[in-house]
Amino acid sequence: MRQSKFFTKVSRDIPKDEESYNAQVLIRAGFVDKVGAGIYTLLPLGLRVLQKINQIIREEMVAIGGQELQMPALHPKEVWQATGRWEGFDALFKLKGSDNREYALGATHEEVVTPLAKRHVFSYKELPTQVFQIQTKFRNEKRAKAGLIRGREFLMKDLYSFHADEADLNKYYKTAQKAYFKIFERCGLLDVTYLTFASGGAFSKFSHEFQTVTSAGEDTIYICDDCQIAVNQELIEEHPHCPNCEKTELRQEKAVEVGNIFKLRTRFSDAVDFAVKTAEGDMKPVEMGCYGIGPTRVLGTIVEVHHDDRGIIWPETVAPYQVHLLSLKQEKVAEEIYEALLDRGVEVLYDDRDISAGEKFAEADLIGCPLRVVVSEKTLAQGNKVEVKKRNKQESELVTISRLLEMVKK
Amino acid sequence: MRQSKFFTKVSRDIPKDEESYNAQVLIRAGFVDKVGAGIYTLLPLGLRVLQKINQIIREEMVAIGGQELQMPALHPKEVWQATGRWEGFDALFKLKGSDNREYALGATHEEVVTPLAKRHVFSYKELPTQVFQIQTKFRNEKRAKAGLIRGREFLMKDLYSFHADEADLNKYYKTAQKAYFKIFERCGLLDVTYLTFASGGAFSKFSHEFQTVTSAGEDTIYICDDCQIAVNQELIEEHPHCPNCEKTELRQEKAVEVGNIFKLRTRFSDAVDFAVKTAEGDMKPVEMGCYGIGPTRVLGTIVEVHHDDRGIIWPETVAPYQVHLLSLKQEKVAEEIYEALLDRGVEVLYDDRDISAGEKFAEADLIGCPLRVVVSEKTLAQGNKVEVKKRNKQESELVTISRLLEMVKK
Repeated sequence: MRQSKFFTKVSRDIPKDEESYNAQVLIRAGFVDKVGAGIYTLLPLGLRVLQKINQIIREEMVAIGGQELQMPALHPKEVWQATGRWEGFDALFKLKGSDNREYALGATHEEVVTPLAKRHVFSYKELPTQVFQIQTKFRNEKRAKAGLIRGREFLMKDLYSFHADEADLNKYYKTAQKAYFKIFERCGLLDVTYLTFASGGAFSKFSHEFQTVTSAGEDTIYICDDCQIAVNQELIEEHPHCPNCEKTELRQEKAVEVGNIFKLRTRFSDAVDFAVKTAEGDMKPVEMGCYGIGPTRVLGTIVEVHHDDRGIIWPETVAPYQVHLLSLKQEKVAEEIYEALLDRGVEVLYDDRDISAGEKFAEADLIGCPLRVVVSEKTLAQGNKVEVKKRNKQESELVTISRLLEMVKK
Repeated sequence: MRQSKFFTKVSRDIPKDEESYNAQVLIRAGFVDKVGAGIYTLLPLGLRVLQKINQIIREEMVAIGGQELQMPALHPKEVWQATGRWEGFDALFKLKGSDNREYALGATHEEVVTPLAKRHVFSYKELPTQVFQIQTKFRNEKRAKAGLIRGREFLMKDLYSFHADEADLNKYYKTAQKAYFKIFERCGLLDVTYLTFASGGAFSKFSHEFQTVTSAGEDTIYICDDCQIAVNQELIEEHPHCPNCEKTELRQEKAVEVGNIFKLRTRFSDAVDFAVKTAEGDMKPVEMGCYGIGPTRVLGTIVEVHHDDRGIIWPETVAPYQVHLLSLKQEKVAEEIYEALLDRGVEVLYDDRDISAGEKFAEADLIGCPLRVVVSEKTLAQGNKVEVKKRNKQESELVTISRLLEMVKK
């Protein structure tokens, strides 16, 4: 992409109405635009990152048998009444239609997926089965000051699993845990993300959150460094020990809940009479699990974890472009390099604008592509070379153009 | 995909609460599930079709310079007040947040995209520029009985173009028209889709709809068979002639409005003071165009246009799977063919279930994949062959397995 044609611009001003670092830098660098508190437009740069995060999540969900579908955001009141959550669910947006019916905006989808599964799954022979979606959710938050980390509107991947018995649910729950760690590994968050024990509600001893340590976190977690797991605030108040080794010296950290998994057991299948035929011929309520992860929240969290005082440092796996090519008044050679990189399938952001070198360097650091390539009179004078520098390293080096093409080979 | 593992099932029953053919057959065949009137879940089969339609639209929008972004569905009341449409816009869903603010659910996005462009575009040198999204819209419809063709919640591709002057807008408008015809060609709708003249509102003589002729249409259009264009109901009442040749004998047809394009001129840039610097150094309001197409509506329309009394006949370009492989108790050979097809990158739905041949044939016709491949004792007895039949043809033929692999080569 040529920056001269790019719809968005980098801004020098720090947005005054944003407290969080992730929103400030994402707005300044042109990844998102703020429409209201907790409501953002994903601009072309931001959407590219989001689509990469989505694709990582999608691949890992398909790998554990998830079939993708897309449920609606508009939910008739009746489905929420059926589970008793129309009144009780926190932060549910409600609205009235001109058909004189009431609707909720989906904050979660147990209310939709359970009746759906009931219409399609009839026998234990068809279990286990799992469906997931990557879909927009709405929460009527009183406060929304954490940027992409807590939106009133946000993207969510939610997978729902259905099982003939508890043992099979438990087995799949472990499989999903592993898939989640693969996702966080691929998104560059593994080192600071902890499996965190949380309350399991009425039906299960524990549920689990995936908490990423960052000072921007709205949650507090208690890490057992021996077991490499953590406990959330609510649970620690009940039982101030590591749930694995019972140690009491736990390290307290701020963290963002980037995912959670929960054994729903028969809470929702009971509510809508979703039972299937067993091998013995009688009917048994279906065991369910749900597995959430917020791609927009992951995006905001990556920014909180991976930045320095000059801007974002995207992991290669989710970077909007792999290469940021800066032409310092050397358009002829830079154009050739740009075309050669595109020919090789490399994602390139090409700064072909007529602005100062200083501005170009500052913007490249702010936007944070993994590899910066500079073409200048000075670099070309030294044996027709270009300067390459990794965003996460201090050193740069001069390389020939053919060596550059070798380096970025896909 | 093995049908034995598939989440959804085909149903024998015609849904009683659906009047439209597209919803009836899409629900029966397991492409969609009804959550409420005009509110559907896209099931795995339906989502595959929708993603293909989206990708066709995306490619054609990128080809005419569109940069993809994603605006939110939740709009603060203030942005709709700024353009004077909070009260006037038909079928706007409104709701109240726990922050005591009012919100609209986006029915269209001029109110969001114009202030956004104002924050990023400052000079005539940066024009023209175009952004688009494929995003969920909401309309508070009183009636929603046309299945996927009129949803309360539906997917929309909306592109917005920004220009320094009217001549440039007019030029791009023509470019967009051509791109739309490419989309309808790729979706198998070109032969029955007409550029249809509609009222241009206060700022332009005409706007244009793309109307697809089908008895399921909610609109009436008047076709000039000489010019291969049409006029919509509203315009024909004002002036009952072909706008091109002035002929009065026009053919009346029912049709679905699958897309529309509109010169907004400065209607929205004026409302939010979006002006850019001209070459002469003064400020001039930006000329805008908007270009809509509904992927979920296109999906429903394809089904209305392409079916017979046994079910859907998907065009290859949007089919959920290219091949429907039916094993009539010949799992050993069928498995080998299934794996060989997957190895070659062919999309295959494989009916490996233990049900009758009659049921398998009926379901294959209902689901409507372009090529049906049957492996039975009878076909294998005739020189180790399989039967292949195109969904849109009567004849079938027996071919060797290597010939089959040749036929479906990508």
